[in-house]
Amino acid sequence: MYHFRNDYSFGAHPRVLQALSATNLEGNPGYGEDSYSARARELIRAACGCPEAAVAFLVGGTQTNATACSFLLRPWESALCPVSGHLNGHESGAFEGTGHKILPVPADASGKISTRDLEPLVIQHRDPHLTRPGLVYLSDATENGGVYTKDELTALSDFCRANGLFLFVDGARLGCALTSPANDLALPDLARLCDAFSIGGTKNGALFGEALVFPRPALAEEFFRMQKRMGAVLAKGWLIGVQFEALFVDGLYFDLARHADEMARRLQDGLRSLGWTLWVDSPTNQVFVIVPNALLPRLDAVCTYEVWCPYDASRTVVRLVTCFQTSPADVDGLLTSLPLLPV
Amino acid sequence: MYHFRNDYSFGAHPRVLQALSATNLEGNPGYGEDSYSARARELIRAACGCPEAAVAFLVGGTQTNATACSFLLRPWESALCPVSGHLNGHESGAFEGTGHKILPVPADASGKISTRDLEPLVIQHRDPHLTRPGLVYLSDATENGGVYTKDELTALSDFCRANGLFLFVDGARLGCALTSPANDLALPDLARLCDAFSIGGTKNGALFGEALVFPRPALAEEFFRMQKRMGAVLAKGWLIGVQFEALFVDGLYFDLARHADEMARRLQDGLRSLGWTLWVDSPTNQVFVIVPNALLPRLDAVCTYEVWCPYDASRTVVRLVTCFQTSPADVDGLLTSLPLLPV
Amino acid sequence: MYHFRNDYSFGAHPRVLQALSATNLEGNPGYGEDSYSARARELIRAACGCPEAAVAFLVGGTQTNATACSFLLRPWESALCPVSGHLNGHESGAFEGTGHKILPVPADASGKISTRDLEPLVIQHRDPHLTRPGLVYLSDATENGGVYTKDELTALSDFCRANGLFLFVDGARLGCALTSPANDLALPDLARLCDAFSIGGTKNGALFGEALVFPRPALAEEFFRMQKRMGAVLAKGWLIGVQFEALFVDGLYFDLARHADEMARRLQDGLRSLGWTLWVDSPTNQVFVIVPNALLPRLDAVCTYEVWCPYDASRTVVRLVTCFQTSPADVDGLLTSLPLLPV
Amino acid sequence: MYHFRNDYSFGAHPRVLQALSATNLEGNPGYGEDSYSARARELIRAACGCPEAAVAFLVGGTQTNATACSFLLRPWESALCPVSGHLNGHESGAFEGTGHKILPVPADASGKISTRDLEPLVIQHRDPHLTRPGLVYLSDATENGGVYTKDELTALSDFCRANGLFLFVDGARLGCALTSPANDLALPDLARLCDAFSIGGTKNGALFGEALVFPRPALAEEFFRMQKRMGAVLAKGWLIGVQFEALFVDGLYFDLARHADEMARRLQDGLRSLGWTLWVDSPTNQVFVIVPNALLPRLDAVCTYEVWCPYDASRTVVRLVTCFQTSPADVDGLLTSLPLLPV
Repeated sequence: MYHFRNDYSFGAHPRVLQALSATNLEGNPGYGEDSYSARARELIRAACGCPEAAVAFLVGGTQTNATACSFLLRPWESALCPVSGHLNGHESGAFEGTGHKILPVPADASGKISTRDLEPLVIQHRDPHLTRPGLVYLSDATENGGVYTKDELTALSDFCRANGLFLFVDGARLGCALTSPANDLALPDLARLCDAFSIGGTKNGALFGEALVFPRPALAEEFFRMQKRMGAVLAKGWLIGVQFEALFVDGLYFDLARHADEMARRLQDGLRSLGWTLWVDSPTNQVFVIVPNALLPRLDAVCTYEVWCPYDASRTVVRLVTCFQTSPADVDGLLTSLPLLPV
Repeated sequence: MYHFRNDYSFGAHPRVLQALSATNLEGNPGYGEDSYSARARELIRAACGCPEAAVAFLVGGTQTNATACSFLLRPWESALCPVSGHLNGHESGAFEGTGHKILPVPADASGKISTRDLEPLVIQHRDPHLTRPGLVYLSDATENGGVYTKDELTALSDFCRANGLFLFVDGARLGCALTSPANDLALPDLARLCDAFSIGGTKNGALFGEALVFPRPALAEEFFRMQKRMGAVLAKGWLIGVQFEALFVDGLYFDLARHADEMARRLQDGLRSLGWTLWVDSPTNQVFVIVPNALLPRLDAVCTYEVWCPYDASRTVVRLVTCFQTSPADVDGLLTSLPLLPV
Repeated sequence: MYHFRNDYSFGAHPRVLQALSATNLEGNPGYGEDSYSARARELIRAACGCPEAAVAFLVGGTQTNATACSFLLRPWESALCPVSGHLNGHESGAFEGTGHKILPVPADASGKISTRDLEPLVIQHRDPHLTRPGLVYLSDATENGGVYTKDELTALSDFCRANGLFLFVDGARLGCALTSPANDLALPDLARLCDAFSIGGTKNGALFGEALVFPRPALAEEFFRMQKRMGAVLAKGWLIGVQFEALFVDGLYFDLARHADEMARRLQDGLRSLGWTLWVDSPTNQVFVIVPNALLPRLDAVCTYEVWCPYDASRTVVRLVTCFQTSPADVDGLLTSLPLLPV
Repeated sequence: MYHFRNDYSFGAHPRVLQALSATNLEGNPGYGEDSYSARARELIRAACGCPEAAVAFLVGGTQTNATACSFLLRPWESALCPVSGHLNGHESGAFEGTGHKILPVPADASGKISTRDLEPLVIQHRDPHLTRPGLVYLSDATENGGVYTKDELTALSDFCRANGLFLFVDGARLGCALTSPANDLALPDLARLCDAFSIGGTKNGALFGEALVFPRPALAEEFFRMQKRMGAVLAKGWLIGVQFEALFVDGLYFDLARHADEMARRLQDGLRSLGWTLWVDSPTNQVFVIVPNALLPRLDAVCTYEVWCPYDASRTVVRLVTCFQTSPADVDGLLTSLPLLPV
């Protein structure tokens, strides 16, 4: 049985687990006031080319999104978010639970939005009887596997600054975005273009943990109280620091992400060779394939996966996800279990 | 330097960490749908003598309290909570952040409340211009180290049922309560007397994790959606299941708690022998001692601790906490570093 | 200058104002505990053929929608609402401010939704990682002037009951809906088919005030506390009771609404005769007309109105609204001021 | 039957009602964009000696408090509020419903707080694990009839500014405070010392309506959206403007308040002459008298009043409130109905 259901099916990368084991009984101050968290923050600041950035550590992605976005907004402000954005579609109303409206923005097939999509909404919401859009949420990689180019993110950032909007990037899969062949962004670009962004650990080698970066620290003032108020402070906070230190000390974070992307590429190439049709051609670690419904039992028998959405009456879009633990043998094993389809 | 600042200064008990390591790269379904979580739930249900109980796993205590209490209430309902209760005093408004008022209840020196304290508030709030009290929150052990007896909890439970109030017990330190010499409650009593209670892992041998028990499963309907909405679902949910399985499989949870209590007893006896004055005589793992301010630097030099509150102009209440990792040598080492005081 | 901007440009109908004046210095208990409110409740119950209904009085429409809808939902539940529904588009996030997500439902040109639109959303949201849809919000008349037929509302009601959804009807313009020639519903139908609905006073002869009807009183339990908690209880509550008594004592409410509808019909017929194009053919008191942009200054000079939305590069949809105070002379005066257009 | 239950038992002062009648069918823009509201704002600004102040109009007191206080705070901030403050004790959790904690501040018998009461709470809450106190709420007159002196309010204002706290004054009964013999404050002092304060119309001659003043308009930016989001914008907003214009055009507001205070003084003097004991000696329009329980039926027979709280086993504190409509004959009539008590 091959694991392709998601990128959080395995625990931590062995080097990360080893770091946790080595420090387990040391005795450390709680709440992220420890030296591991301090070093992890320094490593992240350095990787971002942003020595003054504020870096907070949270446990999971939904928590990070809800906490960061509601932290940035005033009560009458809303978030512009792609219809398919995680904040809008997959978080059980966690963000609205903080009292804010989402303004859904039409997205392209890859899950990306552009200033063209944002502009009419911003103009419409000048009406003081409506919410004021206060931030743009986007994810990189997107929920459909897409990545933003530097030009695209720059245009969005310029638009946000011209319109008094914060730009927040959900980086739950940021590693796979930044190591994708389709990508030309680096962490310092994100630090320059965004007001806040997360660097996901959960889906890239950690047991759990997301780093939240505020390139301009003044914007992060009192964030700790907000985090506490959201139940989002881990008592044994060093656990996240230790993991991010292990991930960032010598580029492990990017090595793991690049590997996942490569496995997804191998899988997509293989599926195409078998005559299977991709729903989107994903440059990151999520693979979306259109499967004839009659073949779903065959798939069930060999791998875990997620049903993404119906494609048409006789076909279904299926998502297969790779991660640090996916081996070429896993990919090839899956491929050899699948039938050749007439193109 | 001896660690007495709190009971979350160390990672996991070695057997818990070992279980995490052994399962690290297995591949498991997310969100607590795995077999470890299923077994851990069964073990907890068995320990509670309550085979039908719903058991949810959350990451931390503040998160658990805010999620459980707001889950149980309607918007116009409030929580009756001891003034010194964690929900009221130590969670940065996380509970009020869900939109509910706290009605502070006077507590005794040990942090406990009784029906005598609740009754006038309940009567006053029959006025429909006020919130309706919807639940009683209490913690066992309390923030001051106190434990409820079976008679006391029964009286509170009876009062709650007679007044349409849910009874929620915050068990962040439930292990140390249940293994205390002052205790005559067992898990099945809690399951019988409460509507929901938590069993804290963070402060008793786990890296993190709280089990939330709803003895009557009908009351827990849709709790998973609530948990998700609160950002309180761990993606790699099996991590909590694995830990609680390790803790409950052969009573490790209680062994660790009993040890912590014994170390606290040893510490309190030793402090008294040295002529130091206890603020309260705690039957659990938190020790509160009145320290002449002039001696605080001496304390700083030998151990970590927490300043609890001023006692008077020249003395301070200091909290020292023991845990599974505290050894008799730690206690004795600390005691031998402290001066004899004139009684 | 003719007033067609909205249906809340004038104060109260003279008979309503007279009732307020006559009772002004009587001395009455506050908060709706007075005899006028009691009588108004009885009149509404009688009109609804629902002697046991709970009837609450609130001040305004946004307040009523946010209070009623959040009252009916648990925190993890969302509201299914037409994209163009007032709750979604015109209330500055008041509903989301209570912590709930809106699931926007595609609506037809008249602003109405059907079970066909609801079904895929309900199916999709069986996923426990998403909010549970808890109610369907719709307005009658809709924001685009449409009215639901008995068949349509019955189908929606059946769907709601089959799917565990409450059905809430925003009746800010219910008078104009029920007196429209396109309508075959009566208040007892609403009482039978809905879980809660409002009867708008503000837009139909009152200074302010909305009656909120819960046909099944058990569902309204503790609503007063909710209303208070939302800042939605008027201290001098009898002011709303007096007004609704005046409106319902001999059918004034329906007379005023019917008049407004007739004035809108007269206006639409006249506009069409002049060769102007209607955006929708509205059976109620809101008229939507497509105006060449070059003619907008002509319109500005003779009447107040609202720009609804752009139609295309050279034309704009304009809304003209009639009310109890609109006279045939107003309509004809406006029409004679407007130019004949080539069809 | 004499009406002393509260100061919202009667409608509007005849001059206010006359103004509403005179303008009833004029046709006015909604949402407070009318000329009456503009003039009322100017009159209030002039009375406050603060030509640049932002002035918003809301419907009721609880709504005004919840909207203003939550507008001024960030999510992790709390409000310091006298235990007996309306925000804490009488609003059914409306403020906590916006997601903020109240830190109750001990108050004196007259319901007033001082910097001495605030300081320890502010110091304690420097701890980043707690909420940050963001504002001080107080009411003038207080719920117990007390008024703040200029010295007292200046000290509180200085303390707030030194500690980064906003100062909000709930002026639901501000008229009776400012016209009390015990008062030495004027509106310009409030404008100088506070960040926001309300001027209550409901309890002093209006049908309803509270003016909310932000002396520094920059602080009020986007308040309209917040008001809308809270369901607190009246569609026919000119109704409040018309009333405040009538109240402020030639000092009617203060004449009515002064009259109410004088009637309360006459009542207190009379009660004392009869040997009745006052609970507090109130300088404003609320009278608190300790009534032997055996006499309550006598009171029931002659007047409406409110039971305030038990005094002891045999006596009850009763509140009697005067207003613009209370006549000397009402007071004397009540007094002659009451028995002489042995002192």
